[in-house]
Order: sequence, then structure tokens, then C-alpha cells
Amino acid sequence: MEFKISKGFFKELKKFIKGKNKKELEVLLNDMHHADIAEILEKLSFKSAIYLFKVLDSEKTAEILLELDEDLREKILNRLSPKEIAEELDELETNDAADIIAELSSLKKDQVISELQDEEHAKDIVDLLRYPENTAGGLMHKELVKVNENWNVFICIKQMRIQAENISRVHSIYVVDDEDMLLGRLSLKDLLTTSSKTPISEVYIKKLNSVIVDTEDVEVARIMQKYDLEAIPVTDEMGRLVGRITIDDIVDVIKDEATEDYQLAAGISQDVEADDSILELTKARLPWLVLALLGGFVSVKVLGLFGGAMTNHGNLFFFTPLIAAMAGNVGVQSSAIIVQGLANDTLSGSLFNRLIKEVSLSLLNGVILATILFLGSHFLLNVEIIIGIIVTIALISVIIIASLIGTFVPILLDKFGIDPALATGPFITTSNDICGILIYFTIARLILGF
Amino acid sequence: MEFKISKGFFKELKKFIKGKNKKELEVLLNDMHHADIAEILEKLSFKSAIYLFKVLDSEKTAEILLELDEDLREKILNRLSPKEIAEELDELETNDAADIIAELSSLKKDQVISELQDEEHAKDIVDLLRYPENTAGGLMHKELVKVNENWNVFICIKQMRIQAENISRVHSIYVVDDEDMLLGRLSLKDLLTTSSKTPISEVYIKKLNSVIVDTEDVEVARIMQKYDLEAIPVTDEMGRLVGRITIDDIVDVIKDEATEDYQLAAGISQDVEADDSILELTKARLPWLVLALLGGFVSVKVLGLFGGAMTNHGNLFFFTPLIAAMAGNVGVQSSAIIVQGLANDTLSGSLFNRLIKEVSLSLLNGVILATILFLGSHFLLNVEIIIGIIVTIALISVIIIASLIGTFVPILLDKFGIDPALATGPFITTSNDICGILIYFTIARLILGF
Repeated sequence: MEFKISKGFFKELKKFIKGKNKKELEVLLNDMHHADIAEILEKLSFKSAIYLFKVLDSEKTAEILLELDEDLREKILNRLSPKEIAEELDELETNDAADIIAELSSLKKDQVISELQDEEHAKDIVDLLRYPENTAGGLMHKELVKVNENWNVFICIKQMRIQAENISRVHSIYVVDDEDMLLGRLSLKDLLTTSSKTPISEVYIKKLNSVIVDTEDVEVARIMQKYDLEAIPVTDEMGRLVGRITIDDIVDVIKDEATEDYQLAAGISQDVEADDSILELTKARLPWLVLALLGGFVSVKVLGLFGGAMTNHGNLFFFTPLIAAMAGNVGVQSSAIIVQGLANDTLSGSLFNRLIKEVSLSLLNGVILATILFLGSHFLLNVEIIIGIIVTIALISVIIIASLIGTFVPILLDKFGIDPALATGPFITTSNDICGILIYFTIARLILGF
Repeated sequence: MEFKISKGFFKELKKFIKGKNKKELEVLLNDMHHADIAEILEKLSFKSAIYLFKVLDSEKTAEILLELDEDLREKILNRLSPKEIAEELDELETNDAADIIAELSSLKKDQVISELQDEEHAKDIVDLLRYPENTAGGLMHKELVKVNENWNVFICIKQMRIQAENISRVHSIYVVDDEDMLLGRLSLKDLLTTSSKTPISEVYIKKLNSVIVDTEDVEVARIMQKYDLEAIPVTDEMGRLVGRITIDDIVDVIKDEATEDYQLAAGISQDVEADDSILELTKARLPWLVLALLGGFVSVKVLGLFGGAMTNHGNLFFFTPLIAAMAGNVGVQSSAIIVQGLANDTLSGSLFNRLIKEVSLSLLNGVILATILFLGSHFLLNVEIIIGIIVTIALISVIIIASLIGTFVPILLDKFGIDPALATGPFITTSNDICGILIYFTIARLILGF
């Protein structure tokens, strides 16, 4: 039952925008989900999008703003006055409002804050602005339902009705003392199945996972996944309840984390999308390419060392790309498996056992691949037997060394507190290229004696 | 407030296991979260793990089973009788129970099902076994709260109390007619803030996202994320409510999807972990390596075509790994960005615009890198100016071609319904290696005329 933008719908929409038929536009879009309207805005020209945005009422546009692509949101916010932006923010939950404010210039930020109507809400938003984006404080919102341990179920439900008015999802009800110290939680289910005179102190669950404001976002994600939580309360350093993080915010953290590893493995150093500007894409891609190019210089130098072999054993040079590519591929495979193991915390056993395993694994792969290479060099490529023997030995050696580099570089980086995903992609391919070529020609020199 | 296994704790635990002190073990583990106990079991020897597992009561062990690594779960299930397994499953939600049954041999499966005590529960589990794993039917569970449109809020709350007993998380309350056709939902919040005599038909929300049993899991994930849903009802083809999917099941789908792309980009063809057996790891890694090796054969052949240049322009061959590596790196970057764009549905604009953009982008990168290469070849590598000019021109051409291949191969695969992530990793590096070398030597031949 997802909405799909049909051509007919789009044609009608454009007609209404052109004719400035506000009424018809309202009817057309009234029942539509804000995520769908955001999708429509992104498909329109900016002029049409801003017109449509201003036609819709602020309850809807606030949610739409959240769904929009960052670039389009920035453009639209630039066209709104501080007062108009404040009206949008008044409709949003605190953390969503804080996220949008954080995107504004510091001058506009202050103007917008001073225009916020609901004072409590404004205070909460300003509080949230203090926390770094990638911490529990940056993820949490202030909206939550909390009850005092001294109430009974009846008063509790009455209070909850008031508090719940402003909250889209209740999840758990947190229990605090008079000092706002977090004591435990009440589950909605328990509340539905308990008589109304029971005191809260008798029904609440004392065991409760919580995080502190400065816990890292990925750590919050890990804890929520491990304990299968849909919401987690956030306390300050003293244990006072200050906010709550819900699973939908964590889904983004999990996705971003996976995306980042993927991009690093592909040699892209910033969070970019296909539709970003050429300049942004270049900034994200060029650094790794420069690194790879400098690695390439080293490989030219290394090959130059063995240039003397060209007169009598020129065929050797035809195999350098093959050997380098295999080294790179094996290295990337090994490092990807380790990076995932580190990320999911599933690496067990000692380093020595891992060494034994990686060597056995690459010996197995190496022997199979080397057999194919030996047969291929003889029957398909028609090179001399001795060259076939050299590339075969070189391939096995290169595969073992490359897989060891691929395995231990990420482990080492992780030990030093550096993101091991940095070791995948261009870094590992380039260093393995060089090692591969060096090993190959060293073996050739030992056998052929040039 | 996450539990960390301390050395002291572990020592005590082992002592109790050795001494078979059941009482002390129960005290030690009684308050512990099942996810923590699962972690502990994975760190023990299998003998100790199975002893501990049998000491704990089945309410706890059922949840522990779910958290365990697949291998250890399989080993433990092998040691339990069908009756014992059925006791575990009676404690679990339907879809979790179905997932575990699906892992059993078909003989044991039937024995376990016949031992299930709660008949309703058993029927629901058997129903769920019919659905393929990667569909809405395979993800959903049968536990949900549903109310009839003809009830009022008072009856509704009474009924909900009964239904909620067996459900860990209520989320929404679904409204159905006498035929079980899904009509809409009641939010808990609305229920908390509505007077008890109001008829349900007046308060329920008619607009509701739902999916059909055979909707693909990634599609369910996309819809739930787009509309920011924490639960989505599942209907059969006729619109009757048959189950519900919650966000925690979707988190796994999102993670698996990201992992799969990452592994494909690294040339690993199956879902493997660092701790899998050598045979499994080889099966996942070898196919791509064989492909890369065959690609390597082609590169040897291509280089052979230009072997004549070796006598007078041997230096050219020193640059082949550099050119091949740059082609591979650029290709992987381009394809990764496109694969992500396709996955997140953020690719907009026509193919022609994308072509223009990709060419501009690679021209910009290419010119910068070529400048570095030209200067480097002269000052660092000391090759003749003419060789420097050739590699510089080749690098720009190779970068453009490689980025076009990297961009359009995934788009093409996607058009034919093939997973575009297949095009990243070894596939793109190998084909770009070959193209790069071919372009490089063709340019060299044109300029030097060998």
C-alpha cells in the first residue's frame, strides 16, 4: 500500500502549480504521507517545490523538511524567514528540531531560537544542541513519559495521558524519584494488566538498561541490538533522566556505519552520494587515488630493479599485472572478513590461531589457483615450463603473504584505535601490489639467476 | 549499564560448573540477561556450555538459543531430545520458534512439532513454516493485538489485556471486521486519551500501511524506513490480517543487506564470518579468485600482443601495474557510488546526464593525477619525456574509461534484474585491469609506432 507517483498524478500536480490552484493542491496532497510529499518535492523544479512547500500547512511541512535530502532542505531553509523556520520547528520533536537548527548558520540559528513560541520546547532544543552529534546526547530526544515512584497506577495513567499528548510513541514509561534519578521502568503491558490502586513502587521493573549522554552512538546501537531494545533512557553523569533514544534513530546509525565501511573498502573517504556535486565527489575520491598513484610509483621503481631480466626473460613482465591483481584481491578478501569480525565482535581465539588458520586457508586457495595457473600458462599462454614454474611458486607465496597482510593490518589498526576499515580498499590493494611484484621477481631472480 | 564478563566472574563460573553446584550457578545467572548468558556460553567449552544450558530453566534457555551463534545452536539442539526442543519452542514467539524449527532436519522437525504443547501456538508455527525466509511471511510473527470494529473502547481494553499477556510489545492495535479483514489501527496513545464508551469505529485510523505475505524482505524494510514504522501488519492476498512484522526483525534485514554488498565488493560470495571453517571460507572466496585469475590470463595475452615493444621501449612495461591498479581503483569507486545510489533509491536524472557528470568528474581527477604522474615520472622515476607523456595520456584515458565501466555496468545489471553489487569488487577490477593495459599500450603504439 505504498504510494507510487504516477505520470498522471504528476501532470495534474504540475498543472495545479502552474495555475496556482491552492485549493486543488491541498485536496490532492491532503491525505498524503509526508515521506511521499518529500519524494514529490525532490522530483519538482526548485521553483515549483518552494511554491508547493509554502502552500502546505506547517504541521505537514515540518515533517517533510525532515525527510528531504540535505541539499534541498538547505535551499528551502534559505528561502524561509527565521520566524517561518521557528514555526516549522515548533511542530517537531526536540531532537529533530535540534538537528535542523544545527544545519543553520550561527546568525540564523540565534534568530530562529528567539522566535520559538513554546518556551519549554525551546529550552529542550537548546539543551540538545550542546551534545556532539555522534553521542547518546546527540541522538536522544527530550520527549518521554516519566512517572514518580510515589504515585499509584491511577494517578500514573492520568499523568501519562497528559504527557503522551506530545509524544508519537510511548514505548516504556520511566520511573524516577523526586530528584529525577532514573529508578526503573513500567511496561505499558504491565500497566494494562494491573489494578489501578497498585502503587508504582510495587509494579515497576528495577532492572533497566540505560546509557550516559556521552556514550558513542555506535555503542548505543550495539547495546540496543544486543538487548533487543526499542528505546533506551539516557541519563546525565549523575544518573538523572535527561532523554530517550528510540530504535528508529538507531536504524540510521547502523546504516551509516555499514555505509562507511563499504565506502572505505571502495576507496571513498567521505559520506557522498551519486547525486552530490562534482567537487564533493572529487574531494571524497581523490585522496585515495593519489595514495594509489604514489604506490604505483613504488611499483615502477621495484620493476625497474629487475629490468635486467627483460633481455632474456621478457615473458616474466607479462605476468606482473596478474600477480599484482591476485595479491590485491586476496588481501581485500582477508581484510574484509576481519573488518566485519571486528565490527560485529565475532573474532575469537588467539592471534596465533588466526595466523595458522589464515595460512592454511591461503595454502588451500593458493594450491588450487596455482594449479590452474600452471596448466593455463602451459596450454593457453604457451610460455616456457620454467616461467610457468616461477609464476606458480610466486602465486602461492604471494597469496599467503597477501592474506597475512590483509588479516593483520586491520587487527593492528584496531589495536591502535584506528578504524580497521581504513585498511581495506586502495590501501591494501596498493601495498599488496607492491609486495606481490617484489616477491614474484625475487623468486624469478633466485631461480633464473639474472 | 551493560554487563561485562570479568575474569573473576568467569573463574567462579568455571569452578561452579566443575563442582556441579547447580544452586550457586542459578544464583549467579538468575538475574542475567539472556543475551549476556549466550555470550558466556560461547566463551565456554562445549561440554561446560551444554551442562550450563541444561541447568537453566527453559524460559531462559529458549531466549538464549535465539541469541547463540548458529553453529553452537546447532550443536546444542543436536544434544536435546525432540521433547526438550519442543519445551524451548513453547516459550518463544511464533516466528522465532519457526526459525529454529527451520534449522532442524526434516525428521526431527516433525518429531518436535508433534511434541509442542500449546496447540494454537503449534498451529501458528506450522503456518509460518510455509513462507519463504526472505518474504514478509517469513519475517512476521503471529502475535499481535487485534480488535473488532464493532467493540467500544471499554471492551477493547478488556480484550487487549487478555491478548497482551502473550505479547512482548504491543505497538499498534489492529482493527478488523468479522471476516478478519484489516481495516485500520488504533494507536495506544489515542486509547489512553479517549473516553471508554467511544465506539472503536469512531476512533480508529483508517489509513494504514500494510504488506502482503509475499512482499520481499528488503521491500518491507524500505517501506518501514520510509514511513518510519515500528511495526507493520501483514495480510494475505485477500486482505485478511495474518501477522505482524516489528522493527527489530527489520534491523537484521538492513544489516544483512549492507553486509552482503560489502562482501560482494570484497569478492566474497557467501555470508561467511572469520570464525567459519576453512572449507566454508574457501567456498566463499575461491570463485572470485578463479575469475580474477582467468582475467589475469587475458592480461598476459594482451601484454604479449605488445611484446615487440620490449626491445626498444622496455620502460613501458614498468608502468603496467600502475596503470592497471589505477583503472581498478577508479572503477571500484565509481561502481560503489552507483551501487549505493541504486540501493537507497537516490539516483535521479537521465543516463545521459550521469554520463556527462561521470566524464567531467573523471576528467578532473584524471588531470590532477596525470599531472602528479608526469612530474613524478620525470623527477622521481627519471624516464624519458616521451614515456612520461605516454603514461600521462594513458592515465587520463584509463581513468575516464574505467569510471564509465564502473558506472554503467552496475546500472546495466540492475536493469536486467541482477544484483548490481556483483559488479563491484574483483569483477570490476579485473575487467578494468585488462581495459587499462589495452588502452595504455595502444596509445604507446600510436605514439611510438612499434
